[in-house]
Amino acid sequence: MDDSYEYKPFYDGLVEHGLIVPTSVLGTFGRGAVFEQVVLRFNDLVNRLAADDGAEVYFFPPVIDRKIMEKVHYLETFPHLCGSVHSFYGDNKEAHNLAECANEGGQWGDMLKQTQVVLSPAACYPVYPTLAGTVPAEGRLVTVLNWVFRHEPSEEPTRLQSFRMREFIRVGTPEQVVPWRDMWLQRGLDLLHSLKLPASSDVASDPFFGRGGKMRALSQKDQKLKFEVLVPVISEVDHTAVCSFNYHQDHFASAFGIYTQDGEIAHTACMGFGMERIAMALFKTHGFDIKQWPETVRELLCLN
Amino acid sequence: MDDSYEYKPFYDGLVEHGLIVPTSVLGTFGRGAVFEQVVLRFNDLVNRLAADDGAEVYFFPPVIDRKIMEKVHYLETFPHLCGSVHSFYGDNKEAHNLAECANEGGQWGDMLKQTQVVLSPAACYPVYPTLAGTVPAEGRLVTVLNWVFRHEPSEEPTRLQSFRMREFIRVGTPEQVVPWRDMWLQRGLDLLHSLKLPASSDVASDPFFGRGGKMRALSQKDQKLKFEVLVPVISEVDHTAVCSFNYHQDHFASAFGIYTQDGEIAHTACMGFGMERIAMALFKTHGFDIKQWPETVRELLCLN
Repeated sequence: MDDSYEYKPFYDGLVEHGLIVPTSVLGTFGRGAVFEQVVLRFNDLVNRLAADDGAEVYFFPPVIDRKIMEKVHYLETFPHLCGSVHSFYGDNKEAHNLAECANEGGQWGDMLKQTQVVLSPAACYPVYPTLAGTVPAEGRLVTVLNWVFRHEPSEEPTRLQSFRMREFIRVGTPEQVVPWRDMWLQRGLDLLHSLKLPASSDVASDPFFGRGGKMRALSQKDQKLKFEVLVPVISEVDHTAVCSFNYHQDHFASAFGIYTQDGEIAHTACMGFGMERIAMALFKTHGFDIKQWPETVRELLCLN
Repeated sequence: MDDSYEYKPFYDGLVEHGLIVPTSVLGTFGRGAVFEQVVLRFNDLVNRLAADDGAEVYFFPPVIDRKIMEKVHYLETFPHLCGSVHSFYGDNKEAHNLAECANEGGQWGDMLKQTQVVLSPAACYPVYPTLAGTVPAEGRLVTVLNWVFRHEPSEEPTRLQSFRMREFIRVGTPEQVVPWRDMWLQRGLDLLHSLKLPASSDVASDPFFGRGGKMRALSQKDQKLKFEVLVPVISEVDHTAVCSFNYHQDHFASAFGIYTQDGEIAHTACMGFGMERIAMALFKTHGFDIKQWPETVRELLCLN
C-alpha cells in the first residue's frame, strides 16, 4: 500500500468493534451480529428498490455442478480462483491411511477424488442451467443471494475467499439486455450515493489468468463489457469494487441453450453487489458504530 | 422405501409449487422465495425463543480451516462425508493442460492441489477455535447460522449435500453443559409442537464410517450423548431428524484448548436445527400452500 489509507487499522477496527471475528485462514473471517445486520438490511433495501421489477427470486447453495464450470470454460480463464470439492471414496483400510496421513499433517487431499461439485465462483452460475429453452418475448429477470468462492487468500480485508453476492440476471435480446445493464449501473450508483458512499463508476476487466489473460482483459475493456462501482475502503487511490455490471453477450446462453422467441441464442447480463464489501464500505465511510451513522443512512437501512 | 410414504410425490410437489428448483446434482436444489421465507421466519422464531439466553451471535462462511477437521479427527470418523477444497497452483502451460482436460470431460481435479480450506461439516466447527482459552465462570453460549456440506448425494429430498444449520453451542463445566442440552431437547420439542409438527425425540447416533463406526455408534447411544427430534417427512416409519442435541464431553475443548476457571478442560454441547428439513417438515405436515397453513402456525412464523 503506497497511499494514505492502511488496511491494517481498518481490519483491526472491525475486529475490536466485534464486527468480524478473525479465523486462521485469510479471507474467511466470521461475521458478528451487527455486520450481518448491515448486510441483510442492505439486501432488504435492494428488495425495496427492485420491488416492481418482477424478478424471480432464488437462492442456491454454495456448491454447484462442476459441469457448469466446465461448460463456461472457467478453467481457461480463472483456473487460479477455482475451488473444486474432493471427497473420500475408499474402503476401511484406505480410510485408516487417510486419517493417519491427516494426523501426521500430510497432504491427505491427494488421497481424495473430485466430486460432482465445485464451489460456485459467481452467484449467477447456478441460474443459467435453469433458464435452458426459449425465454418469453419480454425475456427473463432472476435475482439470487448466494455464497461464492474465489481462491485468493489475502491479508487485504475486502478480498475474501468466501462471500455473498446479491445478483440480478437479465436474459433476452441484446436490445433488452444492454439498456437494462446500463439502467442498473446508474441505479447502483444512485443507491450507494443515497447511503452517502463516495461511489464512482468505471469500465473494468476481470482478473483473467496468465499470458492470454492480459489480451482478454484489454478486449473486455475495449468492448465495455464490464463496469464497476467503486468506493474507497482500504485505499484512497485504488478504490474497491462493490458492484459489477457485466454484459456476457451470448457466452452463457450458448453454453446452456437459452434462446429468444425468434430462435436466436439469447444474450445475458448480470449485476451484482458484493455484500461484505458494501458493509465494509459503510463501516469505512460512516464509522464502526452504526448508532453514529447519518440519520438518513440509518433510516434507509431500517437501523432505528 | 417400503412404507406408506413415497418421497417422489413430495419432491415433485415442492418443485411444482415453486418451492425448490431442481439442479443436475442430487442434494443441491435451489430454494424458491417462499421456501426461503419459511427458513428465515423459523430462524426469527428461534431468535425470539432464545432472546433472553444472551448468546453471542456469529455467522461463518461455508469454508473453514482444514486444520479444524484434522484436529477433531473428522477423517477417522466421517471420511466419506468430507468436502476438501482444491485449487490450481500451476503455470501457463499447466493451465492450458487443465482447461483441455476439462474440455475433454477428464478428471481435471487430479491436476489440482488441496487448499487450506474444507467445507464446514457442521455449523459449530468454526466456533471452537474462537473459544480457545479460559471461559468465564458462567461458561459461554454462542449461536450461529451456517452452511454445511456432507458428501452424501441422495435422491431422498431431505438428504442434502449442502444445507444450513442454526446451532447453539454451550461451553462450561459438565454441570452447566448437560442440563443445558437437556433443557434444549424439551424446548426444541415444544417449539416444533407449537408449529403443530408431530415431533418426537429419541436417542441417536452419528453415521460413523466403516467397521469401527458400528462400535462408536453403539457406545454413543449407550452413553446417551446424542438425541434427535424427528418428524415424519418422507416416511411414516423412518422419521426425519430435524434437530440434534449433542454432548461432546471434552472432545472439542481438548482439541482447541478451552478451559474452565478451575483449569480443567471444558465440556461442550451443541444443539442444531436443520433449517431445510424444518421447512420440509412444515410443507409435508401443513401442505405446499403456506396460505392454507393453520392460523397459529402462520402467526408464529409471521406469515400473515
